Amino acid sequence: MVAEQTLTDQYLRVRAHSEAICEGLETEDYVVQPVADVSPPKWHLGHTTWFWETFVLVPNAPGYQLFHDDFSYVFNSYYETVGKRVLRTDRGNLSRPTVAGVYQYRAYVDEHMSRFLDGYEAMPADLLALIELGLNHEQQHQELLIYDIKYILGHNPLLPAVAMPMVTRQEARFLSAPANPPAVVPEGVYTVGYQPSDNPDGQSFHFDNEETAHKVYLNQTTLAGDLVTNAEYMKFINAGGYQNFRHWLADGWAWVNTNGIQAPLYWHQIDGTWWQYTFDGLAPVDPNAPVCHVSQYEADAYARWKGTRLPTEFEWEAAATLATGTPLRWGMRWEWTNSAYLPYPGFVTAEGAVGEYNGKFMSGQIVLRGASVATPDGHSRPTYRNFFQPDKRWPFTGIRLVNL
Amino acid sequence: MVAEQTLTDQYLRVRAHSEAICEGLETEDYVVQPVADVSPPKWHLGHTTWFWETFVLVPNAPGYQLFHDDFSYVFNSYYETVGKRVLRTDRGNLSRPTVAGVYQYRAYVDEHMSRFLDGYEAMPADLLALIELGLNHEQQHQELLIYDIKYILGHNPLLPAVAMPMVTRQEARFLSAPANPPAVVPEGVYTVGYQPSDNPDGQSFHFDNEETAHKVYLNQTTLAGDLVTNAEYMKFINAGGYQNFRHWLADGWAWVNTNGIQAPLYWHQIDGTWWQYTFDGLAPVDPNAPVCHVSQYEADAYARWKGTRLPTEFEWEAAATLATGTPLRWGMRWEWTNSAYLPYPGFVTAEGAVGEYNGKFMSGQIVLRGASVATPDGHSRPTYRNFFQPDKRWPFTGIRLVNL
Amino acid sequence: MVAEQTLTDQYLRVRAHSEAICEGLETEDYVVQPVADVSPPKWHLGHTTWFWETFVLVPNAPGYQLFHDDFSYVFNSYYETVGKRVLRTDRGNLSRPTVAGVYQYRAYVDEHMSRFLDGYEAMPADLLALIELGLNHEQQHQELLIYDIKYILGHNPLLPAVAMPMVTRQEARFLSAPANPPAVVPEGVYTVGYQPSDNPDGQSFHFDNEETAHKVYLNQTTLAGDLVTNAEYMKFINAGGYQNFRHWLADGWAWVNTNGIQAPLYWHQIDGTWWQYTFDGLAPVDPNAPVCHVSQYEADAYARWKGTRLPTEFEWEAAATLATGTPLRWGMRWEWTNSAYLPYPGFVTAEGAVGEYNGKFMSGQIVLRGASVATPDGHSRPTYRNFFQPDKRWPFTGIRLVNL
Amino acid sequence: MVAEQTLTDQYLRVRAHSEAICEGLETEDYVVQPVADVSPPKWHLGHTTWFWETFVLVPNAPGYQLFHDDFSYVFNSYYETVGKRVLRTDRGNLSRPTVAGVYQYRAYVDEHMSRFLDGYEAMPADLLALIELGLNHEQQHQELLIYDIKYILGHNPLLPAVAMPMVTRQEARFLSAPANPPAVVPEGVYTVGYQPSDNPDGQSFHFDNEETAHKVYLNQTTLAGDLVTNAEYMKFINAGGYQNFRHWLADGWAWVNTNGIQAPLYWHQIDGTWWQYTFDGLAPVDPNAPVCHVSQYEADAYARWKGTRLPTEFEWEAAATLATGTPLRWGMRWEWTNSAYLPYPGFVTAEGAVGEYNGKFMSGQIVLRGASVATPDGHSRPTYRNFFQPDKRWPFTGIRLVNL
Repeated sequence: MVAEQTLTDQYLRVRAHSEAICEGLETEDYVVQPVADVSPPKWHLGHTTWFWETFVLVPNAPGYQLFHDDFSYVFNSYYETVGKRVLRTDRGNLSRPTVAGVYQYRAYVDEHMSRFLDGYEAMPADLLALIELGLNHEQQHQELLIYDIKYILGHNPLLPAVAMPMVTRQEARFLSAPANPPAVVPEGVYTVGYQPSDNPDGQSFHFDNEETAHKVYLNQTTLAGDLVTNAEYMKFINAGGYQNFRHWLADGWAWVNTNGIQAPLYWHQIDGTWWQYTFDGLAPVDPNAPVCHVSQYEADAYARWKGTRLPTEFEWEAAATLATGTPLRWGMRWEWTNSAYLPYPGFVTAEGAVGEYNGKFMSGQIVLRGASVATPDGHSRPTYRNFFQPDKRWPFTGIRLVNL
Repeated sequence: MVAEQTLTDQYLRVRAHSEAICEGLETEDYVVQPVADVSPPKWHLGHTTWFWETFVLVPNAPGYQLFHDDFSYVFNSYYETVGKRVLRTDRGNLSRPTVAGVYQYRAYVDEHMSRFLDGYEAMPADLLALIELGLNHEQQHQELLIYDIKYILGHNPLLPAVAMPMVTRQEARFLSAPANPPAVVPEGVYTVGYQPSDNPDGQSFHFDNEETAHKVYLNQTTLAGDLVTNAEYMKFINAGGYQNFRHWLADGWAWVNTNGIQAPLYWHQIDGTWWQYTFDGLAPVDPNAPVCHVSQYEADAYARWKGTRLPTEFEWEAAATLATGTPLRWGMRWEWTNSAYLPYPGFVTAEGAVGEYNGKFMSGQIVLRGASVATPDGHSRPTYRNFFQPDKRWPFTGIRLVNL
Repeated sequence: MVAEQTLTDQYLRVRAHSEAICEGLETEDYVVQPVADVSPPKWHLGHTTWFWETFVLVPNAPGYQLFHDDFSYVFNSYYETVGKRVLRTDRGNLSRPTVAGVYQYRAYVDEHMSRFLDGYEAMPADLLALIELGLNHEQQHQELLIYDIKYILGHNPLLPAVAMPMVTRQEARFLSAPANPPAVVPEGVYTVGYQPSDNPDGQSFHFDNEETAHKVYLNQTTLAGDLVTNAEYMKFINAGGYQNFRHWLADGWAWVNTNGIQAPLYWHQIDGTWWQYTFDGLAPVDPNAPVCHVSQYEADAYARWKGTRLPTEFEWEAAATLATGTPLRWGMRWEWTNSAYLPYPGFVTAEGAVGEYNGKFMSGQIVLRGASVATPDGHSRPTYRNFFQPDKRWPFTGIRLVNL
Repeated sequence: MVAEQTLTDQYLRVRAHSEAICEGLETEDYVVQPVADVSPPKWHLGHTTWFWETFVLVPNAPGYQLFHDDFSYVFNSYYETVGKRVLRTDRGNLSRPTVAGVYQYRAYVDEHMSRFLDGYEAMPADLLALIELGLNHEQQHQELLIYDIKYILGHNPLLPAVAMPMVTRQEARFLSAPANPPAVVPEGVYTVGYQPSDNPDGQSFHFDNEETAHKVYLNQTTLAGDLVTNAEYMKFINAGGYQNFRHWLADGWAWVNTNGIQAPLYWHQIDGTWWQYTFDGLAPVDPNAPVCHVSQYEADAYARWKGTRLPTEFEWEAAATLATGTPLRWGMRWEWTNSAYLPYPGFVTAEGAVGEYNGKFMSGQIVLRGASVATPDGHSRPTYRNFFQPDKRWPFTGIRLVNL
């Protein structure tokens, strides 16, 4: 539960974080869309603002005037309910509204939102839930912003560096931590999914896809204490892993060959040495860091090559919430599972536009668990279900193996 | 367990059934490939023969001479291990080998196989397992043959009829059966997957993907006793189901719009009445028959529109093997579940080419349970896991709902 | 002018030639369409028959009954006027009508046509013109039949031989002829295009695109007496011609790289030697034969590499009809010019479906002059304008250079 | 001949004009590439600068230091000779170099060029020719800049206005001019192509594709005095011109249907009235202005619908240079001809990178004659051969008919 007295502060803190992520950008960096998956940063800044305007201010703040009539067309994303949206691949064609215009839009909406939030002594529960959803929605786009900025600059021939302290600090913190023991999940029945009792402090936000909590039966499993490192992954490359169909799912093998994949995203081999694009520019691959920017196809192939497999999302959740022994330590990379993204028993899609949030994507995607160095503080929990198609690797993804 | 004394007979009976399916075809019907998923009938007849030649005769029958050097190139399918294969979409370009040549190939291999099988008094277990796999492989292609023949003729502007007694007889038999009660699965732990104890009579064949049997925890669920009928599905169409995004998964909605989908495959609306292509030619849609040739997207959308959902593969298996109450009656349509096709705990991919059989497809596909009127006798069981991508509808697919 | 007394004979002789071309085929060879440009042989046999039925019998033969209602849908080609046509790339999906059915269709139409033609003592001029167009239309498809049969068998992994005596005889006849002197075209004004005075014997057929005869001014030019040979072309290959962008038009260079072109169509390098598919099966490339199956891009690149160029269509026509000196000898390969296929002054598109014949293709295509060993007897003249897109090479195309 | 004493001034004036065109842009407008044909404005500014650096300064200015090593990779266009170029469709992904960086690049090169040009008292002829080519190259990109800016803003949902005085002034000047009489070209032999004698004042610049001047024979032809107006073109639309295949070339009809074309580019029908995007924003279509932004397919279809045709490039040139009577008045729209873009007799491709300039595009393109309101002053003459593929309509194209 978000404490009511601080809701405006909380709102403004989240909003400021979106802008902090973009602090190092040039105006031009806000505009381009090199591939369909990557949105222009100014689109994220506009879209998150449109969310507040459309779902909070317009229906709830009497007399609120839209900042600009056309913005709802430009900044809508997937919401079929709310008017015609800009096709995802067209976003990078839009030079207007300008970046300055988008920041004005943000300032305008923030001012109205502050006034709106300040106006409540006790906010009705359904409105509060909507505010919390909006904050979490904006946090999700903060993480996407980091992915997209990395992609835009990492695919520019100048390979420019950009300040991204929130990520580099986290990466360094994790790298300095000691090794972790494996997590042993004993055979038995486990309850998975979000339960109010998980949150004795009353923090109750969670997405609809984490419900309903339900029981699953698990065989005994041991999850590795640490993620697969770059050094380990290079052995797979050097062993010809990308050239041998035996390690790959059929879809993965087609993906490797169609796209000429030979290494994780952002890796470049120069005179026999592997380099990778980072926010500090091109740097040698750190052998001790967990491998990053791999697809589920690559994660699965690596696991098969090692004679083991990826965990399921329920094995992961059980390992992360072990009652006895040492639970998993996580948070550095989004960890690919071998679970398809499907509804939990009792899942019900909410009515209206907000109901389009998660449920309709429950087809063709894979669950990732944990969090990454790009995840905003406070936007993670053991029941969180992230999801991407198995070929995606511009998120900060990594590999945790089952120890057979 | 296949009784050793009858192995040759069994082999010849399965082989004859493949040819019986094609009895009504013209030579030209054997050759075409209207879309990538549909293989030319002569390819199925050649490929199944190539399987026996390549995996049984060549390694095990001393002195065996290949029928033709180039056939292994032409009739290989997915097996990356065994030489370069004809790209799937190229199959329909091959006028040679002729249909007569393929039948000669079958006769040649059948003669050598008969002699080979007759030569054993007691066949070693691993060889026997391979023979059983070959028989089941051929049966799978028998069902695909029926799908593909229907597609080829059902997409010809002359809409020609073709004799297919094995299907029409089964369809009539099912349609004359009485209604079935719902199957109630009580909450609890169930064992799913193939177990030797399932087969008191010793018949032990099953695919690798049915292993390892393991426990799952299920909430109480009730599955409808009967499949959704054409009459019920027409209500969905008439209610604008194909025009309302709210009922659809995002991938499904994109599929509907990209392909202009408005009804099940083979349906044509003529002067306000729905007709469908059948093996007897164009016929009015039978309101009482279970809807057929729908994708999982359509099955899922129908279920949402009805306010319910598709069962998982484990709910289905539990309902089909109920210890108390009336188990499901099934076998008319392959029933879409809402389970992704993923490995069971302990699943291990076999070494060698036969190991490419199932495991590498465990990505992006959906499990179907049951069997259809096109399934050969003896090629079904409650633990059988069929799988297709969710947009496929040329198999004989249908819809069973969960009763909420 | 076709002599009236022999019109039925002439008709039947042309019709029989279409079937003679197909004599060596298996039923399966009639059905497939490996690429969009190549039509199934049975389609050509049906389409030419449909032409007679649709444009001659239906409007002119009272009481004529269509052979089959659906055939006009199946066998229409480009004629937008006459109902919905089968999309060109769908032709290879049609197993029905069967080959036998198409031959029955031919026999039926031939019988009615014979009776129809026999019924005239003096045929009206416009009907006679339509009959002549039909005969020439069928001859055009005879040549395409030969191209398409070669493509179908030449892209089958078995590379089967097929009897095609009308082509192999012509090829041999030309190869035994002596070398030819260059043809010198003096500077001046020339009249090009079809003129009645060209045909003192009264044979007047020509296509609309050969009209109106008009004057052009030509600089002095010399055309090579002989076509570029395989031996000469191999020097271009060996000199890295396909790897050096300098020789190529921008569109040609993109075509080479997109399609991985390294040699003429049907050429295969095996252990350092060049082989080519012929109607007798795979054979070593004959160094003395004129190169065949090259695109205009290749012809143009070869010419640039030799420091010269291709002739224009008017230079060619002047050289082929020289009043003084030795005119060109031609007829072995269709000779790529560097002229775009555009209307002559005064060209007028005829009304009705027959008017769709040529004019609407006058965009994006290149004129070829002469004839080839696949051209039916009597279907060539110095004013004939053949045309294909510059990337096409399944016709029997060759290269004649300008001598600079 | 460019007078030597003013070469630096001339250079700086041309360079300043490129920047003047962009004066009204926001930074973001410089970056996007909505379709492959449209380059980001900053790319044009960089590419023209790269031309001076690469072809003039690097080989001729001793001690010249490249502004930035990577810029030659980023700003190369079609020149295969000079290193690997950025694929044309990737240009819109490049947020860096920034717009400010590109302007610094321009300033740096301008400074070095000024010093370099000032250093010559008498410039060698070949170097002077290269400078003139560079100036004309930059002028060509100035016109493309105007096209591309219009496309970028005209496809933005906000339809923003932008100052473009050089265009709007020209448009107004032309619209205020009186009607023009038709131009009658008598039958006879004409010399076409660039001849030194055309330029008594010694101004000799022309592109290689205007050579060699040669004789052509023309029938008598009359060209309309004025271009087809919007009012006239609307009649074609209202008569169902876009729905009737009879008016269209086969390629044009496919283009209309594939792209859903229903009107010229930038036209929008709102409540039954036609509006068009202009540099002043959305405005009603002016019935008296010449139609603009039509493809050659549209121009050709309009002409057929009117029962006439487009002129050839030689008819146009003869009409523009009539010795007797009133020559054509032209310059408002690029006028589509019905001539393919092909080499003149004696055309020779120059050696080296500059030789890639024109010759390699002589395939698949159509000649346009005249000039448009977007053409820089001094960059037009009666022998100028502009060229585009027949489907292009983002240039300022129009229609002049032959009067039959």
